[in-house]
Amino acid sequence: MRRALELAATPGVPLGPNPRVGCVVLAPDGTTLVEGYHRGAGTAHAEAAAIATAQEQGIDLTGATAVVTLEPCNHTGRTGPCAQALIAAKVARVVFAQSDPNPEAAGGAETLRAAGVDVEHGLMAAESQELNRVWSFALAHQRPFVTWKFATTLDGRSAAADGTSKWITSRAARLDTHRLRGLADTMLVGTNTVEVDDPQLTVRDPDDQPLADQPLRAVMGLRDLPARSRIFDGTAGTTHLRTHEPAEALAQLFAKERRHVFLEGGPTLAAAFWKAGLVDEVIVYVAPVLLGAGRNAVDDLGIQTITDAAHLRVTDVAVIEADGEDTCVRLTLTTHGTPLRGLATHEED
Amino acid sequence: MRRALELAATPGVPLGPNPRVGCVVLAPDGTTLVEGYHRGAGTAHAEAAAIATAQEQGIDLTGATAVVTLEPCNHTGRTGPCAQALIAAKVARVVFAQSDPNPEAAGGAETLRAAGVDVEHGLMAAESQELNRVWSFALAHQRPFVTWKFATTLDGRSAAADGTSKWITSRAARLDTHRLRGLADTMLVGTNTVEVDDPQLTVRDPDDQPLADQPLRAVMGLRDLPARSRIFDGTAGTTHLRTHEPAEALAQLFAKERRHVFLEGGPTLAAAFWKAGLVDEVIVYVAPVLLGAGRNAVDDLGIQTITDAAHLRVTDVAVIEADGEDTCVRLTLTTHGTPLRGLATHEED
Repeated sequence: MRRALELAATPGVPLGPNPRVGCVVLAPDGTTLVEGYHRGAGTAHAEAAAIATAQEQGIDLTGATAVVTLEPCNHTGRTGPCAQALIAAKVARVVFAQSDPNPEAAGGAETLRAAGVDVEHGLMAAESQELNRVWSFALAHQRPFVTWKFATTLDGRSAAADGTSKWITSRAARLDTHRLRGLADTMLVGTNTVEVDDPQLTVRDPDDQPLADQPLRAVMGLRDLPARSRIFDGTAGTTHLRTHEPAEALAQLFAKERRHVFLEGGPTLAAAFWKAGLVDEVIVYVAPVLLGAGRNAVDDLGIQTITDAAHLRVTDVAVIEADGEDTCVRLTLTTHGTPLRGLATHEED
Repeated sequence: MRRALELAATPGVPLGPNPRVGCVVLAPDGTTLVEGYHRGAGTAHAEAAAIATAQEQGIDLTGATAVVTLEPCNHTGRTGPCAQALIAAKVARVVFAQSDPNPEAAGGAETLRAAGVDVEHGLMAAESQELNRVWSFALAHQRPFVTWKFATTLDGRSAAADGTSKWITSRAARLDTHRLRGLADTMLVGTNTVEVDDPQLTVRDPDDQPLADQPLRAVMGLRDLPARSRIFDGTAGTTHLRTHEPAEALAQLFAKERRHVFLEGGPTLAAAFWKAGLVDEVIVYVAPVLLGAGRNAVDDLGIQTITDAAHLRVTDVAVIEADGEDTCVRLTLTTHGTPLRGLATHEED
């Protein structure tokens, strides 16, 4: 299973809406017959990839054990159901880690058992879930996982008293933001941000060049968008969600197979998601800067008194450092009871 | 010298206004004859302690080498000048790390040389300066080193919209504040804080009991203080500085041999020190809490536009964690060009 998880985590795989999955097929004596992993939406699932390799190489899988990180799927999507493929390959036993949280695809274990295949599950399930934490959350909740990112000074400001705000954080912190944007599949802002700031909303490399693989640029709000906005420059897909309801926007995005929304669109939009209980993760870049006055980084959240304050859990603290620039501190927090990641911080001395 | 620094750093020494100093006296063959370290104001300096031990034990120091972490003093304060004591003990050579930044006490090296003693200095000077960073700064600038501490939510608030503010940070963070208070020799607040909050301003242990060794409680401002204020409870010394000028308050405290002021007295006082350029270190407890509205943790600092924003250097990031409570993040920053401490943070991944 450890090897299957390694295969699942193969770097550089463009996954789109699909989870990371790895598969190792073992002979009855425990030797590896064939391996496979999923390379992203539209390509073969991990089990199918392994079976295809076996067929190419003339390897007989009769009586073998398939070790998979995720429950083999039971539905026909872009590819056929893996449960049927494993049955057809005469595999005797299937061991999988995480059950499929996708109601459409679940049931593979039952199908296999009904066909007389010995099925076990749960081995390293936590590791598989961690590997696919955003995808698992999205499928379980039937909406995209939402990361709200904002930058603030030490004293909670996003702009000075006169409204100027250029580069609260360092270049290193902005590059780090691009790295995180690249882990999401959707950038979401409001129509107002497009009208006022005209952002490009692309993921760019250190040379400011857009990467080949770009998240969807989603703009929500009822107003029409200026046709000459930079979001229509063709470097990435763009969609206009004609709603100002966060839940409706997320439903539309989930229907477009979006699993991870990166919310960067100003304090008003963020506050709307917050009040709707639709923020799952908060990433804050704290710049070592004091302004003492100016625009607040976070808008009214509907909290009147201290006992109603929103408490989050810190899951990660990182120092974003670069020569000759402000050292920014990135805090990652979850709004859920238990951290979705381990706390990777240094001990207090 | 490494051993002398170890002696200087002997834990539990109550130092008062004096630096940490250690001394090792070596025979010409390199063996250790005697050691000494300074135990705090009013007690023997490190060299004098070593010489006294030698006399008690009948050890002859003629021709020996004294290795000291700080330039031997040249003045008669509570104790006699160490330079003269070393000459009287017939020491042949003195090696010291850090030059004495105190203009009153400096000149020991010259006195020793004039008496024919071989003098070398600079070995591990940075380590000695680090050990006494606050004292070195205070003596060099002839005013106490100022640490400004404040607690804030993620979004820069210190109280909710209705003014309630009890426990923005966790109990663990408050204990950590007491630990830091104990490293300073003065707690400074304004008269307004005493009138409104009536704080005790003592250093307390986890059982909320005051420690034996307490910093001075200093209140600055022109108004009289309520006689029944808790700062007059006798658990620690208290002084009223009849001024609202930060520089004047620091001058008065320096004259009282205060070297390290811990500024906790609300945003107005902090802003006055900030505007006067009299904040050397900023310690911020960032609670993983959002309020979205309410009182700002930092008041107007006279900054109008983003190019005038105050940039600090992060010198330390620590996670203050306790079971079942908010994990608070403590940022330590310096207002000076180079960090006074090394950056003790984990690498970004």
